Amino acid sequence: MQIDKIKARKTPLQLRSKERVERIIATTEQLVISCDPSEITTSLIAEKANVPVGSVYQYFEDRDGVLLALGERVLNAKDQRLKKIFDEVSEQAHWRHVVKVVVNAHIKVETENILHQKLNAALANNTEWEGINQASTNRMIDFFSRYGLLEAQELPSKEAKNIVRIIVIMTTAVVRRATELKSKEDSDLLLAELLKMIIAYLSTKLGD
Amino acid sequence: MQIDKIKARKTPLQLRSKERVERIIATTEQLVISCDPSEITTSLIAEKANVPVGSVYQYFEDRDGVLLALGERVLNAKDQRLKKIFDEVSEQAHWRHVVKVVVNAHIKVETENILHQKLNAALANNTEWEGINQASTNRMIDFFSRYGLLEAQELPSKEAKNIVRIIVIMTTAVVRRATELKSKEDSDLLLAELLKMIIAYLSTKLGD
Repeated sequence: MQIDKIKARKTPLQLRSKERVERIIATTEQLVISCDPSEITTSLIAEKANVPVGSVYQYFEDRDGVLLALGERVLNAKDQRLKKIFDEVSEQAHWRHVVKVVVNAHIKVETENILHQKLNAALANNTEWEGINQASTNRMIDFFSRYGLLEAQELPSKEAKNIVRIIVIMTTAVVRRATELKSKEDSDLLLAELLKMIIAYLSTKLGD
Repeated sequence: MQIDKIKARKTPLQLRSKERVERIIATTEQLVISCDPSEITTSLIAEKANVPVGSVYQYFEDRDGVLLALGERVLNAKDQRLKKIFDEVSEQAHWRHVVKVVVNAHIKVETENILHQKLNAALANNTEWEGINQASTNRMIDFFSRYGLLEAQELPSKEAKNIVRIIVIMTTAVVRRATELKSKEDSDLLLAELLKMIIAYLSTKLGD
């Protein structure tokens, strides 16, 4: 009976917790898009989310903690989008086609992801953010490494994985830099030639 | 006579100004290497350089102004090192050799340049710093575009310049990202494969 009581009392509390955490994160998302990173503070988040500032500290360590929680969601959503696109490409397609579709999707997903770019700026010197990005990159590498064509080419699995690794890291690096470049001409050129460079490189490994 | 007096009075003043500016920049260089970016303030710079804080504001707009002046010197020195290495490669050498020497030199100069990396972190959200980096990249593109072999290949000069542009921007982007990556394995792989990727790409333009 007592246990039931606790349970009954706990559930709405947990619901309220969950709802508050969601509200804090959703508010922070809006702030990241509309404010300069330096303007975002726990007080501003609390004010805009209409919760006491102590409530922010109850669920998150500090301002960066909220940004990191938001960042993890953004990266997970990005990973899911890329996986979906990859799954939709036929296993029978030529490797050039597969690479073209996936790299272009990666470029599109990243260049349109203003939230991710703003988070990169706001968390520029945060090592945890670097770790979260790294984890997302590693998930992508594991996922693409299962691509059947690399096995069909009779590449040793370690080499196949390294090829995927270099392409994922290279694409992430170049796209990230392209979104930072102030010259749109340079940014467009970088993205347009990235795919050609990757295909030229893969041709040396996979043949025509 | 009066003019001479002014001159005589002015020269030591100018000398003192120059000496102070140099001391402020040299002190900031030490601070960038040894401190966390957030710890560097005009007060700390003034204290360590043994000048009044007003003196820092006499020559620089603010803390970022001092960092930018230091940054310009760091990038100019880097450009000079790369130009020297490029000038020393024979015009008769095979293009693969020239690319290998220059890209490897670029990688070495950047990965060893702790000061440049620390400035990138300290000025991560400073648009003027992005502009100074861009200007350095453009100087490199202009310089390498004069490479005789591209003309000898009878490439239209606009295409030749675009090829140089993409390689310089790509190298800068990848090297910058490599120095940020926490995983040394990923960073080394990225740098090792960058050269292979550039050479594979150039082979599609210049033949074997």
